[in-house]
Amino acid sequence: MAETAPAYVVGIDAGGTRTRAVLAELDGGRVRGEGAAGPGNALTVPGPSLADHLAEAVAHAVPEELRGRVVAVAGGFAGAGHRAQGADEPGRLRARAALTAALARLGVTAASVGVHSDIETTFAAAPGHPADGLVLVAGTGAVAARIAGRVPTATSGGDGWLLGDDGGGFWIGRAAVRAALRAADGRGVPTALVRAVGRDLGLPEEVLPPEGYGLTGATVWSAERRTAYRAGLLPAVMDRPPVRLADHAPVVVRTAEERDAVAVRILQEAARHLAETVAALAPRPGEPLVATGGLLAPDGPLLSPLTERLAPLGLTVTPVADGSPGAVALARLGRF
Amino acid sequence: MAETAPAYVVGIDAGGTRTRAVLAELDGGRVRGEGAAGPGNALTVPGPSLADHLAEAVAHAVPEELRGRVVAVAGGFAGAGHRAQGADEPGRLRARAALTAALARLGVTAASVGVHSDIETTFAAAPGHPADGLVLVAGTGAVAARIAGRVPTATSGGDGWLLGDDGGGFWIGRAAVRAALRAADGRGVPTALVRAVGRDLGLPEEVLPPEGYGLTGATVWSAERRTAYRAGLLPAVMDRPPVRLADHAPVVVRTAEERDAVAVRILQEAARHLAETVAALAPRPGEPLVATGGLLAPDGPLLSPLTERLAPLGLTVTPVADGSPGAVALARLGRF
Repeated sequence: MAETAPAYVVGIDAGGTRTRAVLAELDGGRVRGEGAAGPGNALTVPGPSLADHLAEAVAHAVPEELRGRVVAVAGGFAGAGHRAQGADEPGRLRARAALTAALARLGVTAASVGVHSDIETTFAAAPGHPADGLVLVAGTGAVAARIAGRVPTATSGGDGWLLGDDGGGFWIGRAAVRAALRAADGRGVPTALVRAVGRDLGLPEEVLPPEGYGLTGATVWSAERRTAYRAGLLPAVMDRPPVRLADHAPVVVRTAEERDAVAVRILQEAARHLAETVAALAPRPGEPLVATGGLLAPDGPLLSPLTERLAPLGLTVTPVADGSPGAVALARLGRF
Repeated sequence: MAETAPAYVVGIDAGGTRTRAVLAELDGGRVRGEGAAGPGNALTVPGPSLADHLAEAVAHAVPEELRGRVVAVAGGFAGAGHRAQGADEPGRLRARAALTAALARLGVTAASVGVHSDIETTFAAAPGHPADGLVLVAGTGAVAARIAGRVPTATSGGDGWLLGDDGGGFWIGRAAVRAALRAADGRGVPTALVRAVGRDLGLPEEVLPPEGYGLTGATVWSAERRTAYRAGLLPAVMDRPPVRLADHAPVVVRTAEERDAVAVRILQEAARHLAETVAALAPRPGEPLVATGGLLAPDGPLLSPLTERLAPLGLTVTPVADGSPGAVALARLGRF
């Protein structure tokens, strides 16, 4: 009996920060190659760069001698059709054009090329690759969706930093800077978070609130220092694009771990917003809920407070690290 | 006895929307001339345009034959030193340069030229031209200050649309669009406000929630229409500068007058934020509190809810239409 050369599939996770590609055998579970490259958001990365990043990630994942044996490719793209708009949605059209160009450049002639939103591949990344349930992605933004037959049929949140995305990284970072400003003008308390935000923004030590504010013996934060803090903080924030406020989310997580009262409250509030975003999809008890993003991946800081808030709705959260296993699963399904 | 030719003063109110100039006799109360021109924010209007707008407003207010008799000019500028930073604050420097150029161009050779923030002139615009107390300006933004000896010694709020200004016009307009999006994805209720916001943004009638939502017999807002509403609303907002969200404040005021529950709640919340901004200045019972801006001028929509919230602190609100009478008062004082 002649040995059959195995066939392969490629799964791609194209996110706002990086593009990952994974090579796997069509029939088996094992990952045979991996590659990564720059950002892959279908709406914000210009078309030629998007094609370059896709080609680079796929080239690393798929050795040249196997490129003719790839039978199916599936990619999940940030910026592609969060809103269940279907195949003619602008992000999907751009993603398909870039992916087609990248594969042609590498000589990958897969018969099946699937373009999905990152929501779909994230959901499919859960163990068992479910077809129906709920998904929540909380990175810089925050969006939830109901998936039926592997496609989103309704979404909640995901309205961008200016109007929504409540509970995501931008929301958390903005809340931290707001708390700092409120402390500086007397409407809030200058906890360790306020020190940390000031330090992140490059303010000099002498304008920060003194360490151990509120403890006996600690010096107070004088009116002069408060004014200088605020006068330094505002232009430091305003000179950057607004979305950079998300840079302050990690400091909230860190100070919350040290039991900073303001940081803890911000994360609790964020978890409440995320739970509300899921609840707007009218979940049924026992439905699968798959979650990902910097805040909700395995060990993510919001995973445990969110789990607590969703338990009364009969939901348990399954965190996944990224969507590439889901993309591999969708590639395999697309093959048949 | 020879008749003495009267001397004059000019007061200028230079705001984000327009620049007003008023001519008055040095010794008397009567306004002898008025002029208006384009925006006068010292930070956002480019220097040459600022000088043009100032010159145009002053030229209308002061007939040519009286220009040599102006002994003092005072201007209150938006964007000039809300933060009690003193005379070398960037907005003040720009305002002084533009005002000096404008007066030179017109042949107004006043010995005294005072440059103030709009907060100072607003406060001085109250009856009796007080020297000490509190002031609250709520237009697109929202800022409060404590005034001592006619200069601000502490401020609260006023951190700009991205981080603060809670309760101001931007905050209200953003709250309206957020409420509309929440209604569209099932987290909120599609009241008349949601119709009005959609209409403001040019969405077609067939995607708006049906009139009289919630009343018996009214048709429901179908999932397809909700999705189309949201898909139309988001790009309409995103294609404009973020600050244009303030454009939706008037529709909140209008629908609140018609008892729209969501609009009423937004305005109540705005009044709460404004009261909190004032409270951060640790007011003393009986202190004067002068208020102005589109939301708080005489007959402004937030005047009555704010008055209610501040009564327990022993504060009564004195609304003023604009800062030009205060600028006239400061010009008279600068003369001596």
